[in-house]
Amino acid sequence: MIERIGISLEAELLAQFDRLIEEKGYVNRSEAIRDLIRDTLVQREWSQANGAEERVAVATLVYDHDASSLAQKLAHIQHENHRAVVSALHVHLDAHNCLEVLVLRGRARDVVRMGEGLVSTKGVKYGKLVPATTGQSLR
Amino acid sequence: MIERIGISLEAELLAQFDRLIEEKGYVNRSEAIRDLIRDTLVQREWSQANGAEERVAVATLVYDHDASSLAQKLAHIQHENHRAVVSALHVHLDAHNCLEVLVLRGRARDVVRMGEGLVSTKGVKYGKLVPATTGQSLR
Amino acid sequence: MIERIGISLEAELLAQFDRLIEEKGYVNRSEAIRDLIRDTLVQREWSQANGAEERVAVATLVYDHDASSLAQKLAHIQHENHRAVVSALHVHLDAHNCLEVLVLRGRARDVVRMGEGLVSTKGVKYGKLVPATTGQSLR
Amino acid sequence: MIERIGISLEAELLAQFDRLIEEKGYVNRSEAIRDLIRDTLVQREWSQANGAEERVAVATLVYDHDASSLAQKLAHIQHENHRAVVSALHVHLDAHNCLEVLVLRGRARDVVRMGEGLVSTKGVKYGKLVPATTGQSLR
Repeated sequence: MIERIGISLEAELLAQFDRLIEEKGYVNRSEAIRDLIRDTLVQREWSQANGAEERVAVATLVYDHDASSLAQKLAHIQHENHRAVVSALHVHLDAHNCLEVLVLRGRARDVVRMGEGLVSTKGVKYGKLVPATTGQSLR
Repeated sequence: MIERIGISLEAELLAQFDRLIEEKGYVNRSEAIRDLIRDTLVQREWSQANGAEERVAVATLVYDHDASSLAQKLAHIQHENHRAVVSALHVHLDAHNCLEVLVLRGRARDVVRMGEGLVSTKGVKYGKLVPATTGQSLR
Repeated sequence: MIERIGISLEAELLAQFDRLIEEKGYVNRSEAIRDLIRDTLVQREWSQANGAEERVAVATLVYDHDASSLAQKLAHIQHENHRAVVSALHVHLDAHNCLEVLVLRGRARDVVRMGEGLVSTKGVKYGKLVPATTGQSLR
Repeated sequence: MIERIGISLEAELLAQFDRLIEEKGYVNRSEAIRDLIRDTLVQREWSQANGAEERVAVATLVYDHDASSLAQKLAHIQHENHRAVVSALHVHLDAHNCLEVLVLRGRARDVVRMGEGLVSTKGVKYGKLVPATTGQSLR
C-alpha cells in the first residue's frame, strides 16, 4: 500500500535537492526521499543493536583539543569499557583541531553505546560512527 | 520562502520512519526529511570537491587479505599519491578479514579521488569514505 | 655485597663515554655502567620469555614496499597468529619506503616469536622490537 | 691506546651479567661492556641531532591514564609542535594503563626534542624513542 504525505521545506533547499536528484538519475523526488529514509533506517537498525553478537565499528571524531575537559570526557567514555576499543588513531590536524579514529569491537550493545556516546559528546565538531560489520535484518 | 511537496511511499516504510522520528524527537516529518536532505547535500558537495583546498577524510575498508592481489591493488592506489595518506591503521579481524582505516589529507581532488578509488575497489566487502572536514557552503 | 672489576677499553671510546656520563648527570662511571647492564638484562629477560603470561610489545619496521614479496611475507607472519596483532600503523615515508609500527599482545612466546620474526625478515631495512611490559624479576 | 678502569657493582648483578656474557659468546667482560657503551653512544649521537635534516622516529609510552594531568602534559608537548606528529596510536591496555605509540617526523632537532620530552615526562612508566632513520657518523 502506498501512502502520500506532504513535506514543507525552504525553496533554496528544494532547488539544491532537485539538482542532486537529477545528477543521481532518480526519476522523481519520492524515489530519492525513499532512499534517504531506507538508509537512515538501516543505520538506525544497526545502532539499535542490543544483542551480544560481535560488532566492529569505526568512530571518527573531530574536536578542539583545548575545549574544556572534552579530551578527558572522551577518554572517560573509552575507559568505561576499554576492552571494546581495539585502538585509537590520533592526528593533530592543526594547533587546535584533532582527528581521532577509533576501532571498536565487542558486543553489539557495547560498541553501539560507546560509539554513539563518543560522536554525540557535546563539543565534538564532527562525529560519525561507521559500521564495519552490518546488521542482519536489513542487510 | 517555504514550498510544499508531496511524497509517495510504502505504508510499511512510512510506519518505520514515523517510529524513528518519534525516537529522535523530531517535531514532524518535514523537519526529519529536511535533515536527511541537508546531510546528503553536504555529502555530495564534499564528494564533488575538485579544487586545491585542503581536505581530510577517513576511509574504512573491510576486505579479505587472501583475495587475489587485492592488498596489492590497495597499496598501489595509496602509493600513487602517498603524500595524501597520513597513516593507515590495520586490524586483523579474523584469519581472513582485514579492517583498514586510512586518514587521507591533501588537495580535495586528490583526497576524494583516492578515497573513492579505495572504497570502490573490486573485492572490498565494505567501504566507506567519511569526510572529517566539511564543505564550505553548507557548513 | 659490592664487587670490583677491571675493564679495558680504547681511550677514545672512554673519552666519549665520559662526556656522555657528564651530560646525563651520573656521579661516576660505575653508576653509568650498572645502568647499562641492568637495561641489557631487562631486554634479555624479556626476549627469552617462553611462558604463557601476557606481554605487549611494539615492533617498528622500515622497508621498501616494492621489494619482492616482502609486504606479503610480513603479512603472512602476522596472519599466522593474527590474534597477537592488536593493530598496525602504516606510514608511507616516500614513494618506496614504508614505516610499519605493530602493537603485539599475547602470550610471551607468541609475541616474542612474531616480533623477532618480523624485525629479522630479510629485506627489512630497519627493525626494532620494543617491550611495552617488562619481565618480572628485574621490574 | 687502551685504558683500564675499575667498576663497582653488586655481586648479584655481576653474576647475572656473567651469565649473559656467556650466552652471547663474549670473550670477556671488557668486550661486552665496550659493546654496551658503543650502543649507548650511537643512541646519544642520534638523540643529539641538532640539524634541519629530516628524521623519523617512533616513541613508545606506557602510562596511567588516571595519573594527575599526565595525559594533558603529553598532549601539550605534542601540540607545541603538532606538525612533527604524523599520528599517534593509542591502545587501552587495561582499566588504567595506556600504550601510546607516536610516529614523529620533522627536523632532527624537533623530532628528538619532542621524543625525548615525551619519554622522559614524569609519570611515564615506560618510554622508549626508537629512530626509524639513523644518524650519519656512526651508521
